[in-house]
Amino acid sequence: MSIDKNTTFLIIGLGLIGGSYARTLSSQGYTVYAITKEQADIDYAKDWGIIKDGTTNPESELVSLADIVVFSLYPNALTDWVRSYQHMFKSGVLITDVTGVKSSIVPSVQKILRPDAEFIAAHPMAGREVSGVQNSDSAIFKGANYIVTPTEKNTPEAIETCKHLGELLGFKRISCLDIYEHDRIIGFLSQLTHCIAISLMTSNNSEHMEDYTGDSFRDLTRIARINEVMWSELFLLNREILIEQIDMFSEELERLKGYLQTENRDALMDMMRLSTQRRALFDKK
Amino acid sequence: MSIDKNTTFLIIGLGLIGGSYARTLSSQGYTVYAITKEQADIDYAKDWGIIKDGTTNPESELVSLADIVVFSLYPNALTDWVRSYQHMFKSGVLITDVTGVKSSIVPSVQKILRPDAEFIAAHPMAGREVSGVQNSDSAIFKGANYIVTPTEKNTPEAIETCKHLGELLGFKRISCLDIYEHDRIIGFLSQLTHCIAISLMTSNNSEHMEDYTGDSFRDLTRIARINEVMWSELFLLNREILIEQIDMFSEELERLKGYLQTENRDALMDMMRLSTQRRALFDKK
Repeated sequence: MSIDKNTTFLIIGLGLIGGSYARTLSSQGYTVYAITKEQADIDYAKDWGIIKDGTTNPESELVSLADIVVFSLYPNALTDWVRSYQHMFKSGVLITDVTGVKSSIVPSVQKILRPDAEFIAAHPMAGREVSGVQNSDSAIFKGANYIVTPTEKNTPEAIETCKHLGELLGFKRISCLDIYEHDRIIGFLSQLTHCIAISLMTSNNSEHMEDYTGDSFRDLTRIARINEVMWSELFLLNREILIEQIDMFSEELERLKGYLQTENRDALMDMMRLSTQRRALFDKK
Repeated sequence: MSIDKNTTFLIIGLGLIGGSYARTLSSQGYTVYAITKEQADIDYAKDWGIIKDGTTNPESELVSLADIVVFSLYPNALTDWVRSYQHMFKSGVLITDVTGVKSSIVPSVQKILRPDAEFIAAHPMAGREVSGVQNSDSAIFKGANYIVTPTEKNTPEAIETCKHLGELLGFKRISCLDIYEHDRIIGFLSQLTHCIAISLMTSNNSEHMEDYTGDSFRDLTRIARINEVMWSELFLLNREILIEQIDMFSEELERLKGYLQTENRDALMDMMRLSTQRRALFDKK
């Protein structure tokens, strides 16, 4: 399965990310269908040319049109969907996803999947603090990272097609990671940062802090505005790794605290220099 | 001392913040002089109309022109400057500052200050991850908070003038805080957030993380690019409060970790809902 101008896409779950996939692919001339819970989201997406058509319930006539299916659902909902409706897929369909955890999802989906379908997982490292297809935007992929997470069940062709999809969507850096390595790295880069933001936001009960704040607190807590249903599911699916990451970070914060206690200015400055040097690598170019 | 069109300002320390004060006041027609270490910064600021004139060494002819002096120096340097050069001030001068800590600085400066001068401290909650007068910009004050921190040594007139200065600079919310309350709140909102960003950046030695990151990690570590000389000084001057803030935050992060360990999804979602609800107050309007 390679992508050409006749490739038909089906997006399952038309939220911010699914909607941004649909919008970007439609704008490039591909045929894009969608299945999502709310009829209002289908209507909106059709009115704005984000999709060609869509339904709120899986129907064979629509599902069987798709050459490539993109799941943009919560992790457990993805597995449930495949189990219930995979009989509707066209033979040879390529399935991908946008899920934030991989080792708890990918092997189990690959295990139950029809032999004439292939699931190649991916994680677009893009998002916003708002949700819904109404806020979808191709721009969120610009300069962003896209991670393909193949297993030994995947074919080289599917991996290439999945990378090609990342390019079409406009991602800047496209990489491959093993599903376990993915979960460890994302546990650090994404899940730990959300745990920190939440804890920072809930740790201080004083009122009117917004009258005194600067941008540093705003930056650190932007993601503290969080979809609790999705993120609690993601956290729990990756909880052992996430607990390790929290411990690793807490140890480092304790080390810094130790330098404050002993008034060790040189050690503080060393830490800050390392931090400054490393952070320089992370700017979006 | 109130501000009128003839008020002459002297900025001591022409970096990002001092430069942004100078630029904003000059653009409104005030006469602004500066003293700073590097002649190149004086030349730049004169060439771009940011100041009328300036020197690299304190000189009576210049210092005595100022009705209002703004210190934009590292905390200990501020105290040293006042001790060494306050004889140059015009009688009746009003002195303010931009320093990030207050209780370790303000009483000692007020104690040594000439009786015909008044020091009213303030903290503009604005900054950028770049430094220098070359990066100064009036826009950093737009929508930002400005905190005046009077003591019992201050007159109502000086407090009003200091607030007026904040308005002229374009700050959105202007508040007053006791110096001890200021240091506790800033220990949380600003210093703790910098400690977190640094520790997050130094806690993981893996390479190539920038290829996999999303914006959440970028947001949380923007301030991990840090001036180690200034911030180690600020941290140590406020270290007892900062240690308390680190402990308070760490306890909250441990609480979240506990919910992961016991797979308590309801408690996780409660924390996330509180975090979401509180964060809504912090958006810049």
